[in-house]
Amino acid sequence: MNPYTEDQSQSIGSLGESKLIEQLKDWLGDAAPAAPFGMGDDCAVLPFPSPGAQQLVTADPIIYGKHFDAQVSPAQAAAKLMRRNLSDIAAMGGRPTHAIICLALDPKVSISWIEPFYKALAEEAKRFQCVIVGGDVSSADHFLGAFLTLYGETSAPHPPLLRHSAQVGSPIFVTGSLGGTRLKKHHSFIPRISEGQWLARSEHCLSCSDLSDGLGKDFANVLPPALGCEIDCSQLPIADDAIETAKSSGKDALYHVFNDGEDFELIFALKPGTAVDSFLTQWRKELQTPVTKIGYATSRTVSKAPRLSFKNAPQSLSANGYEHLR
Amino acid sequence: MNPYTEDQSQSIGSLGESKLIEQLKDWLGDAAPAAPFGMGDDCAVLPFPSPGAQQLVTADPIIYGKHFDAQVSPAQAAAKLMRRNLSDIAAMGGRPTHAIICLALDPKVSISWIEPFYKALAEEAKRFQCVIVGGDVSSADHFLGAFLTLYGETSAPHPPLLRHSAQVGSPIFVTGSLGGTRLKKHHSFIPRISEGQWLARSEHCLSCSDLSDGLGKDFANVLPPALGCEIDCSQLPIADDAIETAKSSGKDALYHVFNDGEDFELIFALKPGTAVDSFLTQWRKELQTPVTKIGYATSRTVSKAPRLSFKNAPQSLSANGYEHLR
Repeated sequence: MNPYTEDQSQSIGSLGESKLIEQLKDWLGDAAPAAPFGMGDDCAVLPFPSPGAQQLVTADPIIYGKHFDAQVSPAQAAAKLMRRNLSDIAAMGGRPTHAIICLALDPKVSISWIEPFYKALAEEAKRFQCVIVGGDVSSADHFLGAFLTLYGETSAPHPPLLRHSAQVGSPIFVTGSLGGTRLKKHHSFIPRISEGQWLARSEHCLSCSDLSDGLGKDFANVLPPALGCEIDCSQLPIADDAIETAKSSGKDALYHVFNDGEDFELIFALKPGTAVDSFLTQWRKELQTPVTKIGYATSRTVSKAPRLSFKNAPQSLSANGYEHLR
Repeated sequence: MNPYTEDQSQSIGSLGESKLIEQLKDWLGDAAPAAPFGMGDDCAVLPFPSPGAQQLVTADPIIYGKHFDAQVSPAQAAAKLMRRNLSDIAAMGGRPTHAIICLALDPKVSISWIEPFYKALAEEAKRFQCVIVGGDVSSADHFLGAFLTLYGETSAPHPPLLRHSAQVGSPIFVTGSLGGTRLKKHHSFIPRISEGQWLARSEHCLSCSDLSDGLGKDFANVLPPALGCEIDCSQLPIADDAIETAKSSGKDALYHVFNDGEDFELIFALKPGTAVDSFLTQWRKELQTPVTKIGYATSRTVSKAPRLSFKNAPQSLSANGYEHLR
């Protein structure tokens, strides 16, 4: 949906800031607590974290023209905003607690875009059991962006799942399937919160992250700088939509697995020597989400050797992930 | 300073995201802790709040063309970003603990703008004793904005200072002087953190907020909806720069006191019947910042009567404050 309107009476500019904020509060409903625990004072006062828990924070925006466009509904944009942040909390093994949303938008943005956007934010917050405690609305010319800061906490006594902690020989896994994001998944993915929490409770997990910039870049998230990893391309869980995308892109489906961003699946490494079969049996008993072992962490005997090596790869495989700001 | 460059090699676009983030970390130096307590993992892990303290959160951005322009140095823009948020923490009687910064910017923004901006953010964080724990960098066309989420905490056992809690007869005060922001103060104001904390410890303070949209709008921040207030215009602490501004604007200095935003002074209400003289003596013994009683909270016998009434006002006084998004 095109977020802009030329009809001044249908624009947020016709409301003015105070009235717009009243509306936003209304649309959020019980996803937004009353002041001082929500909007309406100079700051929001927050619930104290659970005893022994560790607090987590992450921040990612969605910007019109970059992260979504006129083909995307306001509800899909809202889901993407919440879920890309939820995915970061999931990657640390946490559960979300509260969110702060800053809008920067042109006064020509239409009320009929912002209303379903906020109502969907409220739905998302309720679905994933967090509250929206505050934020800000600023005007900006020819711009529409929503900047979310999301808090979460770990379950005591389990520490957060960190990046870069795999060891040589660590088996490496991914959840779900990869490479299908160009077709639709980047608006409808499910953040792997239960899976992250399950891994944080497990004794086996050494390192975890989420795949946002493509496996070809984000494999490094679970590795210390000195280590590499070998991925068995024949084992990769290729999304049906990656195969579909490859038909029109003229590239191999694996290209999309390695280079397309926004899978928002978890990548994690277990302790070397973990009994993989019994780990998988346990996972499948308690979780529905598919999980696949894709390779293992390796030492690099030559320090300039590429960090990513392949088994069963096609001859020419470009696998650098997605680079922003280029 | 113009934040944009036409010389591609001097632009942040020439760095790409990963290298830019490395640079930002470098420029922040010891204002930014290492992962997992700072940048570098999926989330930042936060220090646990002090026992009995309450956590506070606020969020305000600065956007090029709205909150700053090419006349403003990167360091001034950074100071404004930090301090407008610090002012909200001050208004609740808290002290800042940590900040999250999301940048959205055109790849043509110059490295020579972003470097001093981040170095100044680090200076500001150190000066006001908080740390920068994370954030995000996104590209955006023809846009430059920095979105800050700032956390703070109250000092146990004192509860936060809330808005809207004055009572009929509450004397109302402001810190500093008002109306001078157009000339320079909106880049160099000092957030009233010590003063807010002092008020939170005082038994006398019922309600507090900060003046960001002009006294003519923000007087209402300390009042419950049913109350009004009477301001004695002869008592108002008019900034020298308000008088200077009035010379060129053709308006009365009081116009700027009531309608210009970004004073970032505190406005607060004491319990009715507080001995004002002894309160002022105590304040002046412990704090350097000027403080002035400007009026008191009133009941409104006619519910449609204006909430703001005046003593010693010029005949025609427009006092509506600053309205955004118009």
